[in-house]
Amino acid sequence: MFKKILIANRGDIAVRVIRAAREMKIATVAVYSEADVDALHVQLADERVCIGPPDSKGSYLNAANILSAALITGCDAIHPGIGFLAEDASFAEKCAQIGLKYIGPPVKSIEMMGDKIQARMTMEKAGVPIVPGTNIALRDPAEAAKIAAKIGFPVMIKAAAGGGGRGIRVVREEADFPKTLKTAQMEAETSFGNPDVYIEKYIETFRHIEVQILADEHGNVVHLGERDCSLQTQRYQKMVEEAPAPNLPAPARKRICDAAVRAAKAAGYASAGTIEFIVAPDHTFYFMEMNTRLQIEHPITETVTGIDLVKWQIRVASGEKLAFSQRQIEWTGHAIEVRLTARDPLRDFAPSAGKIATVRLPGGLGVRIDTQIFSGYEVPPYYDSMLAKIIVWDTDRAGAIARMQRCLDEVEIVGVKTDLEYHKKIFASEAFQKGDLTTKFLATHVDAS
Amino acid sequence: MFKKILIANRGDIAVRVIRAAREMKIATVAVYSEADVDALHVQLADERVCIGPPDSKGSYLNAANILSAALITGCDAIHPGIGFLAEDASFAEKCAQIGLKYIGPPVKSIEMMGDKIQARMTMEKAGVPIVPGTNIALRDPAEAAKIAAKIGFPVMIKAAAGGGGRGIRVVREEADFPKTLKTAQMEAETSFGNPDVYIEKYIETFRHIEVQILADEHGNVVHLGERDCSLQTQRYQKMVEEAPAPNLPAPARKRICDAAVRAAKAAGYASAGTIEFIVAPDHTFYFMEMNTRLQIEHPITETVTGIDLVKWQIRVASGEKLAFSQRQIEWTGHAIEVRLTARDPLRDFAPSAGKIATVRLPGGLGVRIDTQIFSGYEVPPYYDSMLAKIIVWDTDRAGAIARMQRCLDEVEIVGVKTDLEYHKKIFASEAFQKGDLTTKFLATHVDAS
Repeated sequence: MFKKILIANRGDIAVRVIRAAREMKIATVAVYSEADVDALHVQLADERVCIGPPDSKGSYLNAANILSAALITGCDAIHPGIGFLAEDASFAEKCAQIGLKYIGPPVKSIEMMGDKIQARMTMEKAGVPIVPGTNIALRDPAEAAKIAAKIGFPVMIKAAAGGGGRGIRVVREEADFPKTLKTAQMEAETSFGNPDVYIEKYIETFRHIEVQILADEHGNVVHLGERDCSLQTQRYQKMVEEAPAPNLPAPARKRICDAAVRAAKAAGYASAGTIEFIVAPDHTFYFMEMNTRLQIEHPITETVTGIDLVKWQIRVASGEKLAFSQRQIEWTGHAIEVRLTARDPLRDFAPSAGKIATVRLPGGLGVRIDTQIFSGYEVPPYYDSMLAKIIVWDTDRAGAIARMQRCLDEVEIVGVKTDLEYHKKIFASEAFQKGDLTTKFLATHVDAS
Repeated sequence: MFKKILIANRGDIAVRVIRAAREMKIATVAVYSEADVDALHVQLADERVCIGPPDSKGSYLNAANILSAALITGCDAIHPGIGFLAEDASFAEKCAQIGLKYIGPPVKSIEMMGDKIQARMTMEKAGVPIVPGTNIALRDPAEAAKIAAKIGFPVMIKAAAGGGGRGIRVVREEADFPKTLKTAQMEAETSFGNPDVYIEKYIETFRHIEVQILADEHGNVVHLGERDCSLQTQRYQKMVEEAPAPNLPAPARKRICDAAVRAAKAAGYASAGTIEFIVAPDHTFYFMEMNTRLQIEHPITETVTGIDLVKWQIRVASGEKLAFSQRQIEWTGHAIEVRLTARDPLRDFAPSAGKIATVRLPGGLGVRIDTQIFSGYEVPPYYDSMLAKIIVWDTDRAGAIARMQRCLDEVEIVGVKTDLEYHKKIFASEAFQKGDLTTKFLATHVDAS
């Protein structure tokens, strides 16, 4: 087992990893930017190294400084956390080059899943359903029209050189296709310098359901069940997650989870990872993408399975085999996570920074809090706006919702704007209580004002 | 179901009850002394009534003021919490007289278990093992000697009018009996004005193991398993509790838990209650006493069973039947509770009061915190010294111990003396890690200095 781990991250996720390592009697090294001198992860680690100025590029994205810190302090492994250098294949490769174990999947898995076309083709070969569409860039309007007709309307026209939601047009009727294609190609040319497009089936209403995977370096792959993460802002930021997914019949759940295991195997995966799916109202589902790292919502899976994902990431990276088979994994009750952030729903979720004068977070039965904040903590303006993850558990979903409502009532944060009141509205909504979830839920049911 | 509950208590237990009620959508009324104006339970309740001066007698023990507060605010039930008026049969009776439901057992059960001789006799009749001894007060030395010989040495001579550990002498050899009896009777006469004594078998080395009971008003009684509470100070104050009891073979566990169910049935019990047992090294066990209320260590049972004891107290008091049978109750993993208190182990656990300048409590996976403290909170000198209950869970005992050690490392409390370092020593002890627990453990293995 490792003797000392450097955590290449900050905030509550760095605290999360430090806690797991400490419980395993592994020493920890925190890295921090000049803005994070007083941060909780810096306080809780056994050692700490300043790696640069406040801006991420100079510090938490500064691979050279992070690797130097690991070498200077005599670490034998690096945990990338979530965000920053997690999912950066070149960082994982550099770790290996200087003899540090990267606590995450093989470089090849990160690369394969980072390339969306390669990921699609790998999934197709593994028998994991993908959204019907083309895997090759199209230019010829006639060919594009033929393919669109074959896929069936509505379809999406996506700029091949686009990304992050930009350069997408939806066509609902075959008759509109030629005109919209022309516009899309002109725009793609103007915006990205390349008129090539992909065509994909457009699924109007769907749920975002993802499956937690755990795999060792000896070929064992298990799934830890699914999470429903449909509650997202219009910028695809997850707000509330739950496990298990409500109103998902057992046969559909099994098909989705089995597909996730096939996906992880096809990716040659080892470590914790997540396969995200688009799930249509009739429970047909399609591969969306694979996250080759831990996820922010991992605690809800830990809560319903009792399995510590971060400890298993560390164990698996050290060469251990999984100690349980698929059929030994059990799920108990229902877990929900709220991401409490320093963002102002009244100003389109604009981030808020500043000193937290007072903070009161909930506690008691069935409540887990993962946070880096405390009274007097200064929320820096440089990073993401996560303040605290509130995770509740109860024997059933109705109980978990009641518990979360109680928790939200107890929260008091003075000093920065938060989305607390917005979260209260979500849980008060009848549609949420019914478990009637799609990615359009927040836009449809929750008024930010 | 009740519409509004008054919580006749303070501190973390009042917060605990408020949380349960809120999750059940029941309104809450907090009562508070003039010393508790800014207390957390006062902040979290829907309504609040000041019931008197700081001293307990004028406030939290002031039944008249508490009952008036309940009537004025239109409550339909009262939860007594732990301590103060919990286990006061006359208070429970007064509640009934003015039409308020007492959320606890029937008055008769409280009375029967409050009278130690009556409790002993009830248990004997129900086939629950009791410590061999006399149920009647003795004066005649010859008769006493005959009874002592029959019980078998070592025996305890207890002043009939004594109590709370006072007026007890141990006799190890038959030859010493007459002389020690004479001394004991003279002391009893001097101290309590009554030379009568009881004689009981003296069990030198034992574990304190107790069983959580839940019973409804329709005759259904289940046990929720046992807790080991052997780690006590020399004044019988529990410091650390765990569930399940380590190194207790399954047949012994079953016998003890079955006896507890018989005990509760014999007491005509309804609500949550606890049967405490003396368990000898050979796992023979004897009834010690029954606590006719919730206990401080109830969270560890909630953690391993997933059953919310306070909600069930409330449901049962409203007339609901238990929703599960004995065989539906399942136990998962291992839970440990630390009672973090404002007491100074270097000064014989003398209580410490004052303002808490800073507090940092742990969080994360498998951690539950029940507390009333916060940064800036003033620990009043009038009440018990509980600061926080830290409850951890993991799949096994070794994992739970590692997690608790991690939690204790994270705790920071500035402003009052605490027993934090003492707790760290307990968990670092090899004997504790082996689960080698008796009520003499702390005196033998943990150095307060």
